[in-house]
Amino acid sequence: MARTVAVIGDRWTLMILRDCFLRVRRFEDFQARLGITRPLLASRLKKLVDASVLAKVPYQERPLRHEYRLTPRGLDLYPVVMAIVHWGDAHLAGRKGRPLIHTHDLCGKDFDPVMVCSQCAEPVLARQVHVRPGPGAAQPARLPAGTPARERTGVRARRAAS
Amino acid sequence: MARTVAVIGDRWTLMILRDCFLRVRRFEDFQARLGITRPLLASRLKKLVDASVLAKVPYQERPLRHEYRLTPRGLDLYPVVMAIVHWGDAHLAGRKGRPLIHTHDLCGKDFDPVMVCSQCAEPVLARQVHVRPGPGAAQPARLPAGTPARERTGVRARRAAS
Repeated sequence: MARTVAVIGDRWTLMILRDCFLRVRRFEDFQARLGITRPLLASRLKKLVDASVLAKVPYQERPLRHEYRLTPRGLDLYPVVMAIVHWGDAHLAGRKGRPLIHTHDLCGKDFDPVMVCSQCAEPVLARQVHVRPGPGAAQPARLPAGTPARERTGVRARRAAS
Repeated sequence: MARTVAVIGDRWTLMILRDCFLRVRRFEDFQARLGITRPLLASRLKKLVDASVLAKVPYQERPLRHEYRLTPRGLDLYPVVMAIVHWGDAHLAGRKGRPLIHTHDLCGKDFDPVMVCSQCAEPVLARQVHVRPGPGAAQPARLPAGTPARERTGVRARRAAS
C-alpha cells in the first residue's frame, strides 16, 4: 500500500489518471482540462512515466512532440479510477446527478462497477473479508483482524512492506 | 472526481483508510502503525470525520477516549482501497510476494478483487467503456472519447463538476 500510494496517492496524479482513461494524451490537453500549472503537470507526468504507468510516445517529428499513453501497468489502474469515480457518484454528486455516464460496450448498457470475489464471483463486502500475512510480509506475526487494538500493535513493523 | 480526490487524494489519508479496513480504530494505533506525526494524523482524521467517512465514537468515559469507525459512506470506500491494494500486489510487490492475503468469508477462499459490470457481470476493461455527459455535467457538450485531442478542449469547463 505504501509503495502504491507513493505512485498514485496525490490528487493531481489521480486527476491525470482519470483523464488518461478518458483518452486525453497531450500535455496541452491535460493542462487545459485540469487547470494545473505546467511545472506541476510536468512533474506528475514524469513521475508516472518513471513508474511505468505512462509511456511518452512521439506523435510528430518536426517539431518533435510527445503524448502520454497508459502502459499495460497503467491500464491495470482502471479499477482504482472507476472505484473512485463510482464512490463520488454515489456520495458526492450534486443535486443534478453524476457528471459522466459509463457504457459497457460488451453488453451495451450503462453500468456501475461492482467489486466481486475472483473465486465465487459474489460482491465483496468489507465485513466478509479477513486477512493474514502473505509471503511478502515484513514479519511472520499474524495480523488478527477483530482482536483488541492493544494486541495489534505488534504488527507495526509490517507497514514498511504493505 | 475532483470532489472525491479532495477527500481521499492524499497518501496519508489512503494509508489511514487502509488501516481502518484492517480494524484499526484508535489514534495511538494509527500512529504506531503509520509512523505519522500526531498533528498530521489528527488533521487527516478530522478531515475524514468532517467528510462523514469516519465517525468519532467514545469508547471510554474516564478519561473520555474516542475511536474512529468507518461510517456507511466510509465502508463504501472498500472497492477503492482493495483496488489500490490489488494493483500494488500485481505490480509493486517485492520478490517474496504480497504482504497480505485476503480471504472471502462467503466462499472461504483466498481471493483477488475483480471489477465487473453491474449489468452483465463480465469483467470491465478500459477499452470496452465509453462515456457521455450525465445529468450533473457542467455543460451539455459531448465528451467524444476517441476523437482528436484538439476537438476535446471544449470540455474543459466540465472539470469543475467531475
